[in-house]
Amino acid sequence: MENPAERLRIVLVGTQHPGNIGSSARALKTMGLRRLVLVAPERYPHADAEAMAAGADDVLAAAAIYPSLAEAVTDCRLVLGCTARDRRVALEQLSPRAAAARARDAAATGAETAIVFGRERTGLTNEELQLCHAAVHIPADPAYSSLNLAAAVQVLAYELRLAVLEREQAGIGAGEARALASHAELEGFFAQLAQTLDEIDFHKGRAPKSAMRKLRRLYLRAGLDAKEVRLLRGILADAQRMASLAR
Amino acid sequence: MENPAERLRIVLVGTQHPGNIGSSARALKTMGLRRLVLVAPERYPHADAEAMAAGADDVLAAAAIYPSLAEAVTDCRLVLGCTARDRRVALEQLSPRAAAARARDAAATGAETAIVFGRERTGLTNEELQLCHAAVHIPADPAYSSLNLAAAVQVLAYELRLAVLEREQAGIGAGEARALASHAELEGFFAQLAQTLDEIDFHKGRAPKSAMRKLRRLYLRAGLDAKEVRLLRGILADAQRMASLAR
Repeated sequence: MENPAERLRIVLVGTQHPGNIGSSARALKTMGLRRLVLVAPERYPHADAEAMAAGADDVLAAAAIYPSLAEAVTDCRLVLGCTARDRRVALEQLSPRAAAARARDAAATGAETAIVFGRERTGLTNEELQLCHAAVHIPADPAYSSLNLAAAVQVLAYELRLAVLEREQAGIGAGEARALASHAELEGFFAQLAQTLDEIDFHKGRAPKSAMRKLRRLYLRAGLDAKEVRLLRGILADAQRMASLAR
Repeated sequence: MENPAERLRIVLVGTQHPGNIGSSARALKTMGLRRLVLVAPERYPHADAEAMAAGADDVLAAAAIYPSLAEAVTDCRLVLGCTARDRRVALEQLSPRAAAARARDAAATGAETAIVFGRERTGLTNEELQLCHAAVHIPADPAYSSLNLAAAVQVLAYELRLAVLEREQAGIGAGEARALASHAELEGFFAQLAQTLDEIDFHKGRAPKSAMRKLRRLYLRAGLDAKEVRLLRGILADAQRMASLAR
């Protein structure tokens, strides 16, 4: 199974403080990522970068450097750009969690994937944002949304790690990313569940709607995939068979 | 509706680098948290703390300082301590996400709640961990798990913000917080589920372990609360009753 982390690069554009480059290298390495890319850093190499990288000096040393974002992502099939919310961007806006899932899924199919962070003060230019396929927004407090650059990298790297671990724990091989159940599959399951509750006499005179509302909420929260829906429906079918034998 | 953030404090114990105190203040404020507590910081006040706090100087200025962790959490009803995984702790281990949900739920009921971070190099002492009700582990890469202190604070503060926002979006009022099922409640449910699959003859000669592994993953992902566990166990009990009548 290919590790999606190998296809994921974190791109820092026009970074002003070299300490943030080092801290970002450390953030990446703690989260199992290794590919740091720098676009036109203002001061680099620099002792502050080395100092903040701590044990991630290997990630720092291996960082590729490009003069422009276009050159840094030319081979990427998915490019996600971190932005502040108020930006008037015509791009789809993703939460860090949704962005991490999308990046992992792309990387797992072998597609080169980039998550891009702009300058400390001014972010990405409109021209740079036009190279991105979607925008990522960290849901900071609107009253003070000024995350440190390395802190923002840490948040995304953390979500990427959770996304990669989730895939590993599900034992999903390359190219078999988990396909969420369709609306129709879920509704078929809920209909069979409601029918089964009737047949095993679960309600005993109580209002059936309340239990089904709670069960819908629970199963929708779980984000079932199509195989899980089939597994649950198989269990329901056997419970229905027992109810029929019991009559 | 009370904002749970008002009952949440982030406690830094024995911090060595004052810059980390400032960065932590900034991490808190970006995530809508305001209550920073310092236990015996090595060098504080310090210009590095001010510099790294950036616009979060108000959070820094308001930080309470105590000589010991015991004094810093004496009024807390829930205390969660961040630790590295390998630590031989007899405490329940929570992911940042589960910890944030638990902290938010406690804070939403008006309970003073603390999330505690140890020293940069050595973490929390065993004596300090004994003051904690559960341990929080950030799932870093075991090959290099050395998160910067402020980066760890940022990850937890981010999860706390998502947890608080989730509650706001669900429109849940104070005092009606969802209490996640305990480990024992979940295990009781899984045992009854396995028993029920046997009794309704679900396996039909297939290996029972595979289905239970998939079902555990699905239900753990859903983050069941105690009421939901009772609802599901009620359904299983009726399926078991039908199976018994069918025999």
